[in-house]
Amino acid sequence: MTRIRLGMVGGGNDAFIGGVHRIASRIDDRFELVAGALSSTPEKSAASAQALGIPRSYGSLEEMARAEAARDDGIEAVSIVTPNHVHAAAAKAFLAHGIHVICDKPLTSTMDDAIALEAAVKDAEALFILTHNYTGYPMIRQAREMIAAGDLGEVRIVQAEYPQDWLTSPMENAGLKQAEWRTDPARSGAGGSIGDIGTHAHNLACFVSGLRVESLAADLQSFGAGRTLDDNAHMMLRFEGGARGMLWSSQVAPGNENALKLRIYGEKGGLEWAQEDPNYLWFTPHGEPKRLLTRNGAGATEASQAVSRIPGGHPEGYLEGFATIYNEAADAIRATQNGTDRAKAMGILPGISAGIDGMRFITACVTSSAGNAAWTTL
Amino acid sequence: MTRIRLGMVGGGNDAFIGGVHRIASRIDDRFELVAGALSSTPEKSAASAQALGIPRSYGSLEEMARAEAARDDGIEAVSIVTPNHVHAAAAKAFLAHGIHVICDKPLTSTMDDAIALEAAVKDAEALFILTHNYTGYPMIRQAREMIAAGDLGEVRIVQAEYPQDWLTSPMENAGLKQAEWRTDPARSGAGGSIGDIGTHAHNLACFVSGLRVESLAADLQSFGAGRTLDDNAHMMLRFEGGARGMLWSSQVAPGNENALKLRIYGEKGGLEWAQEDPNYLWFTPHGEPKRLLTRNGAGATEASQAVSRIPGGHPEGYLEGFATIYNEAADAIRATQNGTDRAKAMGILPGISAGIDGMRFITACVTSSAGNAAWTTL
Amino acid sequence: MTRIRLGMVGGGNDAFIGGVHRIASRIDDRFELVAGALSSTPEKSAASAQALGIPRSYGSLEEMARAEAARDDGIEAVSIVTPNHVHAAAAKAFLAHGIHVICDKPLTSTMDDAIALEAAVKDAEALFILTHNYTGYPMIRQAREMIAAGDLGEVRIVQAEYPQDWLTSPMENAGLKQAEWRTDPARSGAGGSIGDIGTHAHNLACFVSGLRVESLAADLQSFGAGRTLDDNAHMMLRFEGGARGMLWSSQVAPGNENALKLRIYGEKGGLEWAQEDPNYLWFTPHGEPKRLLTRNGAGATEASQAVSRIPGGHPEGYLEGFATIYNEAADAIRATQNGTDRAKAMGILPGISAGIDGMRFITACVTSSAGNAAWTTL
Amino acid sequence: MTRIRLGMVGGGNDAFIGGVHRIASRIDDRFELVAGALSSTPEKSAASAQALGIPRSYGSLEEMARAEAARDDGIEAVSIVTPNHVHAAAAKAFLAHGIHVICDKPLTSTMDDAIALEAAVKDAEALFILTHNYTGYPMIRQAREMIAAGDLGEVRIVQAEYPQDWLTSPMENAGLKQAEWRTDPARSGAGGSIGDIGTHAHNLACFVSGLRVESLAADLQSFGAGRTLDDNAHMMLRFEGGARGMLWSSQVAPGNENALKLRIYGEKGGLEWAQEDPNYLWFTPHGEPKRLLTRNGAGATEASQAVSRIPGGHPEGYLEGFATIYNEAADAIRATQNGTDRAKAMGILPGISAGIDGMRFITACVTSSAGNAAWTTL
Repeated sequence: MTRIRLGMVGGGNDAFIGGVHRIASRIDDRFELVAGALSSTPEKSAASAQALGIPRSYGSLEEMARAEAARDDGIEAVSIVTPNHVHAAAAKAFLAHGIHVICDKPLTSTMDDAIALEAAVKDAEALFILTHNYTGYPMIRQAREMIAAGDLGEVRIVQAEYPQDWLTSPMENAGLKQAEWRTDPARSGAGGSIGDIGTHAHNLACFVSGLRVESLAADLQSFGAGRTLDDNAHMMLRFEGGARGMLWSSQVAPGNENALKLRIYGEKGGLEWAQEDPNYLWFTPHGEPKRLLTRNGAGATEASQAVSRIPGGHPEGYLEGFATIYNEAADAIRATQNGTDRAKAMGILPGISAGIDGMRFITACVTSSAGNAAWTTL
Repeated sequence: MTRIRLGMVGGGNDAFIGGVHRIASRIDDRFELVAGALSSTPEKSAASAQALGIPRSYGSLEEMARAEAARDDGIEAVSIVTPNHVHAAAAKAFLAHGIHVICDKPLTSTMDDAIALEAAVKDAEALFILTHNYTGYPMIRQAREMIAAGDLGEVRIVQAEYPQDWLTSPMENAGLKQAEWRTDPARSGAGGSIGDIGTHAHNLACFVSGLRVESLAADLQSFGAGRTLDDNAHMMLRFEGGARGMLWSSQVAPGNENALKLRIYGEKGGLEWAQEDPNYLWFTPHGEPKRLLTRNGAGATEASQAVSRIPGGHPEGYLEGFATIYNEAADAIRATQNGTDRAKAMGILPGISAGIDGMRFITACVTSSAGNAAWTTL
Repeated sequence: MTRIRLGMVGGGNDAFIGGVHRIASRIDDRFELVAGALSSTPEKSAASAQALGIPRSYGSLEEMARAEAARDDGIEAVSIVTPNHVHAAAAKAFLAHGIHVICDKPLTSTMDDAIALEAAVKDAEALFILTHNYTGYPMIRQAREMIAAGDLGEVRIVQAEYPQDWLTSPMENAGLKQAEWRTDPARSGAGGSIGDIGTHAHNLACFVSGLRVESLAADLQSFGAGRTLDDNAHMMLRFEGGARGMLWSSQVAPGNENALKLRIYGEKGGLEWAQEDPNYLWFTPHGEPKRLLTRNGAGATEASQAVSRIPGGHPEGYLEGFATIYNEAADAIRATQNGTDRAKAMGILPGISAGIDGMRFITACVTSSAGNAAWTTL
Repeated sequence: MTRIRLGMVGGGNDAFIGGVHRIASRIDDRFELVAGALSSTPEKSAASAQALGIPRSYGSLEEMARAEAARDDGIEAVSIVTPNHVHAAAAKAFLAHGIHVICDKPLTSTMDDAIALEAAVKDAEALFILTHNYTGYPMIRQAREMIAAGDLGEVRIVQAEYPQDWLTSPMENAGLKQAEWRTDPARSGAGGSIGDIGTHAHNLACFVSGLRVESLAADLQSFGAGRTLDDNAHMMLRFEGGARGMLWSSQVAPGNENALKLRIYGEKGGLEWAQEDPNYLWFTPHGEPKRLLTRNGAGATEASQAVSRIPGGHPEGYLEGFATIYNEAADAIRATQNGTDRAKAMGILPGISAGIDGMRFITACVTSSAGNAAWTTL
C-alpha cells in the first residue's frame, strides 16, 4: 500500500471545510498531505503548513502547481477548499499539470466559470472529483441501491429539505468569516442558501432517486435585513419520467442545525433519511410495518456495507461519510494511473457533471424566482 | 349541569367519522345524542340508531329537522357527518329551524354551495361550527398562544405537510367505501387530497401562525391510475405580511399514516409539532437549546392547560382533541342561548369563515395547478 | 343497547383518578353514571354530584350500597376511586349487595385487607374488576398476543421501569393533596412508589410476558427528606421458568413524567413499548431489521385491533386504554347477568388475583429491602 | 508538530478493534504507525503490516519491544489490541522499555494479572492509558462537567445499561472469531458480558457521575446453551455518598446493537445519553422543560467543545470519540516527555486505576452472583 501524495489549496487557520478535508483524507490512510498553499499570503500559508505538519508550503496555488508538477515526488492530487470563486482557476491550474483535483462544492461561483472548467476537465488527463460528501453516507448508498433495485417501484415523490439556523441573526455583520463570504455574491455566486446547501439537497435527491430534475419553480427569499442572497428557498420540482418533488433550503430556521433530510416515495414503498441521524434509514414496503434499517445492521445491503468501517450500533458520522469520497477518490486515482478509463474509474463518484448540474440548479432557482416562480428548465 | 340534546345526520354503520363525532361528543359529557338520520334509508337509519342506543330515528334529515324543531325536548344541536356534497343542504335545513350545526369539514363540495351556506349562516340565529378538530390539540393551542405572544418574533416561514399512504394502491377499486367517495368528484368536490387533508394543513397553519395565505402556487398530481382527483399536492404559499411557506398533502406516501406536521420559524425562534405525537411541541428560542414542551408538563401555557384533561405523561390523543371542539361548541351554544352575541360565543372555534377559507384554498389549488402553478390569490 | 347503571365512590372535586374513571366509562357509551358518594361529607358529595350531573347523591358509601340495592333501577356496578385504604371496605359493601365492583389499584393498603377482600370476592356473585388500565392499551394487547404466539421464542429477559419526577421536591409539604396521601403510610399502605406505580410495572410485565414473578431482590430508597415510604425502588426479578428481569420505579427522576416502559427479549426476538408513546410497539425478530408496529397500522394483530377505535396515525391515548377496561367490564357484567360463569366472563380482565399479586409484590419489595435485598418469594 | 511514533500489538487481519485503534490514531494526526506485531505468527504479522503500509513488522511483541527500544527512531508508544489475556504481558514488556502503552479494555483477564500490571505501571516511567473510549464522547464530557458543576444537585440515581444482541444465537459455534474468544474464559477472563461491555457501563457511570460504586448485588445469567460466561447481567449498585443505581449488560437482547445508555438523576435535574445517538444529551432542570443539548450546539459547554471537531448538526461518531482518547494520549505523552508529572499529564484520561476498578467490578459481579446476589464490596 502506497499513499497518494496530496496537496491542499485553501484551508488555512480557522477555515471549517479545510480541516474536514484533512481529516477525511486521513481516515482511511490513503493519502499523505505533503504540500499546501493554504492561505492568501505566503507567510500565513507557511505558518499554517508548519502548524499542521505539512512539509512544503507555497505562496500561491500557481506556484504550487508548477513546482509540484516538476518534482519526482510531487503531489499526485490536490484538494481545493477555497471560497467558491477560486475553485475554477485553481482546478484548471492543477489539471493543466496532470494533477488530480478533489474540489469542494459548489463547482464555481458563476456559470461561465463552470463551463470553462467543464471544458478543462474534458481536456485533462487527470480526474476531477467534487466532494458532494453526503453521497458517501452508507445509508444513502443503501437507499440508492434499494431504489435502483426496485424496492420502491416507480418513484413518485421526492421531498428534500436542508434547513439550518445559523444565519437567523445577521452573523455576517458580527464578524463571522464563514457568514461573510457565504452571504457575499462576489465570493459565493448567485446562490445563497441554494448554493451552499440547496445544491447538496438537489444532488442527493438525484443521486438517491436516480432521477434528474427537469424543471423547477422557485421562490427565493432574503429574510435577513440587508442580505442580497437568498437565505431561504422554496421550490417545487418536476423530475424526468413524471416524479414530482419539493425542496426547501433555509439558513434562518431556528432549531435546525444541519437538518438535511430526504424522503422518497414510490408505488411500492417509501424511504426516509436524515443527515443528523445518518446511521438510520426508514423503509416502509407499502402495506407492511415500517422498518428501521441501520448501518451494518440487519438488512444492510452490499452498497452500504462496502462503505461502513465499524459494526452497527457504533455510529459513523459526517467525517466518515466524507472520508468515503476520499477513499473512492484514491481508488479512482490509482485505477487511472493503472490505465483504467477515466469514466470507469470515477464510478459513482460525483465529478464535473454533478458540478454542472449543481450550477444549473442554482441558475434555474434564480431565474425562476426572478420570474415569479415560473417553471424553469435545468 | 344539563346536557345539550344532540342529533346526528350521517354516521351510520361503518362510517369512520360518525363514530369519532359520537365519542368526541361524550368525552366531556356535555351532549346527549337523542336523534339521528344516520343512513340513506329509513330502515338502515333505524337499525343504526337502535344499535347505538339513540332513541329517535328519522328517515331523512329534512324530516328530522322539522320534527325535532317541533318538539319541546327536540334537539338543540346537530352533527353533520355525511360525505361533503350533503353538508350544505343539511346545514341549511337545521339552521332554518334554529338548530345549532356542528359540521364536518371541508365545508361543502362546491364553492357555490359554500357561498349559499355562508349566506344561510349569516341569516341564522343558530351557530355553525366546523370541526377542524386538529385545532383542539392542546399543544396546537400552546403554539398559537406562543406565537401570538411573540415568542417567535415575526413569523418568516411556515412549513405544513400532511402525508398519508392509504391510497398508494387503488383502494377505491377494492371496495373500500371511504376510498370510493373520497376519490369521487361528485361526492368530494374538486379537491382530492387537498380537500380531505390539505384543508386541515392549511387551516392549522393559519390558526397557529395567526396569518392568512394571500396566494399560492400549486402543482397537483393524480398518481393512482384512473384517478381524477389529486392524490398528491405540492404548493408554495405567500402569507399576508411577507411570511412564506410550503404545503404538501399526499395520500400516496408509503410509511405515513396520518402525518400532519407543522413547523413555524420566526426571527426569534422555531416551533415544530407532529399530529401523530401530539403531546409534544418542540420549541427553540434562537441561540438556545431545543426544548421539548409537553402537554400539561413544565412550560405548559394557559391555553394548553385549559384544554388538557389529565396530567403530563398520560397521553391524550385524537379523540380528546376532537372532544375539545365539542366541549367548546357546548360552551358557545349555552352562551348563545343565554344571550351572548354569536361572534363572541364562537371565540376561536372554527366556523363558516374557516370553511369558506378552506373552499377558497381548494379552489385556488385547482386553479393554480390548471395554470401550471401560477400564483393564485385565495 | 342498554347502558349499565353505574355508581361511584370517591372522585369528588379535584381528585385526578375519579375524573379519569368517569371519562373512561363514557367513551364507549356502555355506562350511565346515576349515583355517587363522591366525597367525605354529604354536603360535599351532593355538591360534586350536582356539578357533574349525577342524579342521586349519598352521604356515605354504605348508605349508597343499601339504597341502590333496594331500587329497581339501582346501580348495577360501582366504581371505587378513593384512596387505597378505603378500597376494601367499599368493595365488600357493594359486593355484599350483588353490585359489581370496578376498583382502582392497588387493591388495598394492607395485606390483611387484601386477604379479607379476596374472600369476599370469592363469596360474591358480582364481579370484581381492578383497573390495571395499562393492560387496555392496544399495543400492550398486541405484545401479549405476539409473545403468546411465540414470536419471541422463550422469554429470557424482562426489563420494566416506571420513572416519574413529580416527588423530586417535597410536594407533600407544599399542600399538594395527591402528594399528601400518596406519601402517607396510613392511607397508601407500605408501598410508596412501588405501590403507586411499581405495581403497574409489575402487573404489565406479567400480563405481557405471560410469566409470574417467583422472587425478587429489592432495594428501596426514600430520597425525599422526611419521607417514610419509598420514592425510588430498584429490584431484580426471577420469573417462573427461568426468565430474569429488572424493575425500577421512581418518583424522583427529573425529566420523567409518566415513563412506564416495558422491554421483553426472547431467544427469537425483542419487543419494546413506552407508555408515553403508546401507539407504537418496536419489534425486532432476531437478525432482521427493527419494525415499528403501530396501532391499527400494518402488522396490527387481532388483539390490538379489537381494542382500537380509530385508524392508525390517529393517536389514541391513556383515556382510551382506560376505557377499554370499562368496555370489557361492561361485556363481563352483561355476560354474568346472562348466566355466564364469572371466570369466563372476566376473560383477561384484571381482577382480584391481579390485585393479590400486586399486594404480594409490594409486601415482597418491603420485606426484601428490609433484609438487605434478600431474594424474597412472592 | 511532530507525530508520535506508534507501534501496535495485535490487530491483524479481521480483528475489529485493531482497525478502530488505527483509525482513531490517525484522525487528529498525532501519531504515525511505524511498527507492529500484528498477528500470532511472523508471517501473518508481516502480511498484515505490508497490507496496512506499516514499515516494520515483528514476529513477537517481546522482539518488537526490544528492537524498537534500541532504535533512535523507535516507537514512543504502543497500542495493545489483543484479546484480554495478553494485555498484561504485553503492557509490561513495553513499559519495561519506557514505551508508553495505550491498551484496550478490560485491563486483563485475571485479577492477579491486573495487580501485577498495576505494580508495573507504578514502577514505570512511561504512561499507561486504557481506552475506555466512551469517555471521549463530547456529550459525555459535557454531562460530567455539568454534574461536577452542580447542575443536577446531589446525585441520587444512576441507571446504566449496555444491551447488545449479537450473541442471541450461539455465534461462537458458527465460526465467528469475535464470539469465540469473547465467550471463552481462558481468553476473556471471568466476565462475559460484564467484562466486554458491563465494564464500559460501569466506567462511564462513574466517570460521568463522579461517584464510585461501593458495593453491588449481581445476578448473572448464561442464556446461550453451553455458554460458561454470563451473556446477561442484572445488578443493583450502591455508590459512595448514598446514590443508588442499576446496571444491565446483555448480549442477548434482540433489537439492541450497541445500546449503551446512561441516565443520571439528582435533586435538581436529570441527564440522559445514548451511545447510538451520541451527539445528543437530554437535560431536564427539575420543573422546567426538557432540553435537547447537542454537540457544539447551543448550550454546549467548554468540556464538550474542547473535544468536538466539527459544527453541531454534523454528527461525530464512535471513531471520533475514540480518537479523542488518542489525541489526549498524545498530549499526555508529549507532556511527560517534556517533564510534566505523570499524574498531571494523564488528567482525566483513563489509566491503570480505571482498569483496576473495572477488574474489581468484574470480580465483584462474579462473587456476588455466586453468593445469590449478595451485596459485595468493590
